[in-house]
Order: sequence, then structure tokens, then C-alpha cells
Amino acid sequence: MSPADLVRQLQWRYAVKKFDSSRKIPPATWKALEQSLVLAPSSWGLQPWKFIVAQDPALRTKLLAASYKQPQIVDASHLVVFAYRKDLCVADVERYVRYTAKVRGVEETTLESFKKVLLSWLSQAGKGLDINNWAFNQVYIALGTFLTAAAVLGIDTCPMEGIDPNKYDEILDLAKEGYRTAVAATAGYRSADDKYAATPKVRYPIEEIIGRC
Amino acid sequence: MSPADLVRQLQWRYAVKKFDSSRKIPPATWKALEQSLVLAPSSWGLQPWKFIVAQDPALRTKLLAASYKQPQIVDASHLVVFAYRKDLCVADVERYVRYTAKVRGVEETTLESFKKVLLSWLSQAGKGLDINNWAFNQVYIALGTFLTAAAVLGIDTCPMEGIDPNKYDEILDLAKEGYRTAVAATAGYRSADDKYAATPKVRYPIEEIIGRC
Repeated sequence: MSPADLVRQLQWRYAVKKFDSSRKIPPATWKALEQSLVLAPSSWGLQPWKFIVAQDPALRTKLLAASYKQPQIVDASHLVVFAYRKDLCVADVERYVRYTAKVRGVEETTLESFKKVLLSWLSQAGKGLDINNWAFNQVYIALGTFLTAAAVLGIDTCPMEGIDPNKYDEILDLAKEGYRTAVAATAGYRSADDKYAATPKVRYPIEEIIGRC
Repeated sequence: MSPADLVRQLQWRYAVKKFDSSRKIPPATWKALEQSLVLAPSSWGLQPWKFIVAQDPALRTKLLAASYKQPQIVDASHLVVFAYRKDLCVADVERYVRYTAKVRGVEETTLESFKKVLLSWLSQAGKGLDINNWAFNQVYIALGTFLTAAAVLGIDTCPMEGIDPNKYDEILDLAKEGYRTAVAATAGYRSADDKYAATPKVRYPIEEIIGRC
């Protein structure tokens, strides 16, 4: 993609207030957006997250009540709930190292020093490191990745921070697997009468946002 | 961009360990990447951030010492420090509303109800809302946006969480403007002998990462 095309897509993106509920994202496009989640970068590559694609209308209606009734929750083609791994622990590191060895076709013992680095980092949890904040932050990388990937593909989105994460956890029964809701995002196609589509984007002048030294 | 092309670019992305220090990102491409930062989404559109593009070699050397000597800090074509707004307050909301009115060419009074919503949200700071965590999270949206934008343009990157944010703040003198270092990212071109370029990406199976309901 050319730099000019990228900027055009990012300029075009905005937080959709009203989706056209009759339009669905084609399967191949949605698959690519799921891949943007799977392939999103995370610190150490640990992937301390899970993404729930909530398509069942009855479930969406329940989530709507936990989202200050923002209509995007039910109107958008797709809804993704971004959950973070709660209390990431030694077992998670072991699982990751084991899986890395499998993917790379090497003995786990060859990853011993990498594992030690990870465990030494993790041993700071509760001291210098807030492991749940850390996991929450990683999820926001995935959120940025998803919104940008969608913009590049010409798919409309709206990040949804205005949700009740505790109620989401309950409705989606996330706690039993050790995850907690961080944020959500909706994706689809704007309604022709979403007035925000034509509203100029508000961005501080580049000199105020970007420092140079 | 087609879904398949997007996935190809995201597959290609990895955290570069060794950059080719002789190669620089062309100005038009870098400008587009700066625009990806300027245009990054944030909650309420508040942009609680500043991005420092650190190109001075002497400064980079200082930052290297605050980055566990990871060579990307000095070898990459570009280094961006992602800083968050510390203790975002009423004055920030006022500035934002004022600026929104200016960009949209409307009287500030027409944004009174929007301002009230923002101030009501902000009044939760220190209660239900950790305003610094919130700002920190927003910066991670911008990080995801930047890394994805770079991948789409075929630019290599490495997110740099392993830095000492307090030392960065000092070196960059960020506190005086009310910002704090969250994370950094390097961008440029991989060295031909970066062995990680050929290492298979480790991603849990999609069934474990994506839930459906």
C-alpha cells in the first residue's frame, strides 16, 4: 500500500455512531480481521488475551444493556469483546514456551534461557510489575491493530470503551477461563444518515502531538 | 487493500532484533507513519498523548543506556517514544472542547452538552477511573496503530517495552510538559542477518484465541 493510500484510509476512519444493521462484512474480509487479532503483537509474544466474537442476537441484546444502550452493539455487523488474561502466572509462561518449542520444532530445553528471562520478568509481578495492567495494555495494542486493519480494508468500526466490564464478564462467563473484559469494538458499515461521518476529524496540530529531538 | 494482502503484511511483521543501520525510511513514508500517530483513535478523541521522534544520535545513545542496551534504539532508522498525558484534568477537557469548536467552525456553547459528559466522566478520576492508566492504555492503541500502519507499508518495527520510563522522562525532559513515557517503538529495515526474520511466528491456534458465541 502506498503512504498516501494509507493516510487516506486512516483519515476516512471515524468512530461510527450508527451502523447499517442490514449490511454484513463478507466472510473473507472478516477472516482477515480475525487474523489481525491473532497476529497482533504482544510483549514477549505472550498473547495474554482472548477475543470473543459475539454474533448471537440474543446475546448482543444482553450486552446492549451492559453498554449504556449504545446501538452499535446490536446494529454492527460484528462485535468483538477484547478480554485480557487475569493474573498471568508461571503456568502461562510454561504453556507459551512449550508451544514455542512445538511451533519451531525444537526441544524445549533449547529455550531454557528464554524461559528464565520470562520467569525472571514475571517474578516482578506484584512488585514493580502490575501484571493485570500489563495484560490490559497488551489488549489495547490488539485494539489499535484491529481498528487500523479494518480502516485499511475499508471496514467501519467503533471502539466501545463505554461498557460495563463486570457485566460483560458475567454475560460471557469469562472468569471461569481466567479472562476479564477490557474493551469492545464493533465493525461493519456506517448508516447513510450517520451524521458523524461528515464531521471534521478533530486532531491537535502535528507540532503539538509530535515532538522532535 | 485486499484481505489477503493485509494478512500477508501482518504475517510478515515481526519484532526486529537487528536493524540495518545504514537504511533510512524515505521521508514520504515516514510522514505517513507520523500521520498514523496523529490520526490514531483515542477514547472521546481526547488524544492524551505525545509522540517524541528521537533522531539525534547523541540522544539515542543516552536512551540506549536507559533501554538495557538493546541495539535497535540506535540502529533503527527512526525511534518514537510514546508518552501519555499525566493527570489529565479539567483544563485538558476545556482545551479539547475549545479546539473541537474551532475545527468544526461552531460556537463553543453548542458543545456544552458534550463538555458536560466529558467533565462528568473526568469527575470519576481517583474514584472508579484511574486517569493515568486510562491515558496509558490510549497510548497503546496508538502503538498498535503505528505497528500495523508500518507493516502495511512494508516497514520493519520493534516495539520496545524493555525501557526505563523514568530515565526516558529525564533524558527527554517530559515532566515539565506534563507527559510521561509509556513505551517506545523503533522502525526501519531489518538487517539481512537478523535470524528472527526467518523464525516461525508463534501464535496460539485461532480456536484458543478467538471465542465465538
